[in-house]
Amino acid sequence: MKQLSVIEQIRVQFHDTDALGIVWHGNYLKYFEIVREAFGRKFNFGYHTAKENGFATPIVKSILEHKLPLHYGELIKIKATYKNNQSAKIRFNYEIYNENDELVCEGETIQVFTNLETKEMSLINPQFYEDWKLKFEI
Amino acid sequence: MKQLSVIEQIRVQFHDTDALGIVWHGNYLKYFEIVREAFGRKFNFGYHTAKENGFATPIVKSILEHKLPLHYGELIKIKATYKNNQSAKIRFNYEIYNENDELVCEGETIQVFTNLETKEMSLINPQFYEDWKLKFEI
Amino acid sequence: MKQLSVIEQIRVQFHDTDALGIVWHGNYLKYFEIVREAFGRKFNFGYHTAKENGFATPIVKSILEHKLPLHYGELIKIKATYKNNQSAKIRFNYEIYNENDELVCEGETIQVFTNLETKEMSLINPQFYEDWKLKFEI
Amino acid sequence: MKQLSVIEQIRVQFHDTDALGIVWHGNYLKYFEIVREAFGRKFNFGYHTAKENGFATPIVKSILEHKLPLHYGELIKIKATYKNNQSAKIRFNYEIYNENDELVCEGETIQVFTNLETKEMSLINPQFYEDWKLKFEI
Repeated sequence: MKQLSVIEQIRVQFHDTDALGIVWHGNYLKYFEIVREAFGRKFNFGYHTAKENGFATPIVKSILEHKLPLHYGELIKIKATYKNNQSAKIRFNYEIYNENDELVCEGETIQVFTNLETKEMSLINPQFYEDWKLKFEI
Repeated sequence: MKQLSVIEQIRVQFHDTDALGIVWHGNYLKYFEIVREAFGRKFNFGYHTAKENGFATPIVKSILEHKLPLHYGELIKIKATYKNNQSAKIRFNYEIYNENDELVCEGETIQVFTNLETKEMSLINPQFYEDWKLKFEI
Repeated sequence: MKQLSVIEQIRVQFHDTDALGIVWHGNYLKYFEIVREAFGRKFNFGYHTAKENGFATPIVKSILEHKLPLHYGELIKIKATYKNNQSAKIRFNYEIYNENDELVCEGETIQVFTNLETKEMSLINPQFYEDWKLKFEI
Repeated sequence: MKQLSVIEQIRVQFHDTDALGIVWHGNYLKYFEIVREAFGRKFNFGYHTAKENGFATPIVKSILEHKLPLHYGELIKIKATYKNNQSAKIRFNYEIYNENDELVCEGETIQVFTNLETKEMSLINPQFYEDWKLKFEI
């Protein structure tokens, strides 16, 4: 089975910091989103793909674990890895590394499929998701 | 002519601060929005009213002037005052005061009416806006 | 043993929403912070107390679970409950309820004590934290 | 006289959008900051340079004018141009262009120099700012 992942490099912006002089903990979910969406563009699997197929993919669970702080101006690497599972969910794991390649943050998100019209959560994998898994031999 | 205004009191949150230990300048536009929407609820004139009448009211211009910094935990007063004008625009002026009643920030926003379907900007006042002005003798 | 908790009522702001028309998942960490800081003010146990005693209390872990979406304008209740533990950590559990008293989101944060000068994490409870626990019979 | 400017290309993130499906107006100040800080790195003139010389450079005025909306996923160009002036201020003008090279937003920021110790605003140009102007023949 293939392991699909994407790495994005970004610079920590001043508006991401707080009065402790470090990145505010909630802003790491923005970093997770940046790389998750980059994954979507690389593997043709994101917000737009879901929407075209009649689904939204809201986040239903997020976990963040912080090992080290990040400061304004640091150039960081954000990695998202797709984690396969049998239920009708999308799971990504995340790792963030600073310029010294130290692990700064780890995390996870779980998304479900909700029908854009009925707003109901899908209990089985939508067909386009099954097709996507097949295409990438997952 | 009546002068319509609303004052909201809020507390500066930690996530509004930056690495200089003060509220990040861009977050003042959130404070402006908080009191503008409170104005909408008080005078039946906001996002929902516009939407029900087929319009969005996007901001097309914002001005912010900062006199003093704000810090985490301060209890502040935000005031929005409606400024009448003849064109098809909504103009608000804003003032923010700290606990010592010192003027911390002044500003202004201009909104226009765009048709939710055609996405086009209205060059004349929508009827619901004219009615609203009449009701409040503006 | 006492159960210490605080409830804050806030209104969902327009700038908290995203293009799906609901509150962006990362903004719930702002709601958690709002009520955690309210807890600090009520029980004399927050950012300022820690700072006066030479400590920062950075978040090292956050968990968010979403049950229902939130929309612009909803009046919500955010509850933080202090969860005692033996290690040198501060744990809060969170619940968010919408206007129909439906559970919208549950979560948890863990904070540690870091020395403001050495930046090192404290492995034992700082004295002021022990005193605080005694005072509230925890 | 030289005209100093910097262009950054960024992608509009999902967390920058609001319930109207477009970038929330306040987030453009983040885009302005991204390119202003890129200017600082390119021309050795930013937050860190000021700090090393004992100054903060807080924003005292911002102006934003919106011509067109921006949507999630768009690849945009943000341009900052330094505007010389005789007073002890830093002025930047900004332009944002979408993928069709249409002007989406224009703006301006004014910064002053405040002494990091006394917190007082400098009425004359700090020496390091004069030196910087000379170096770039402004």
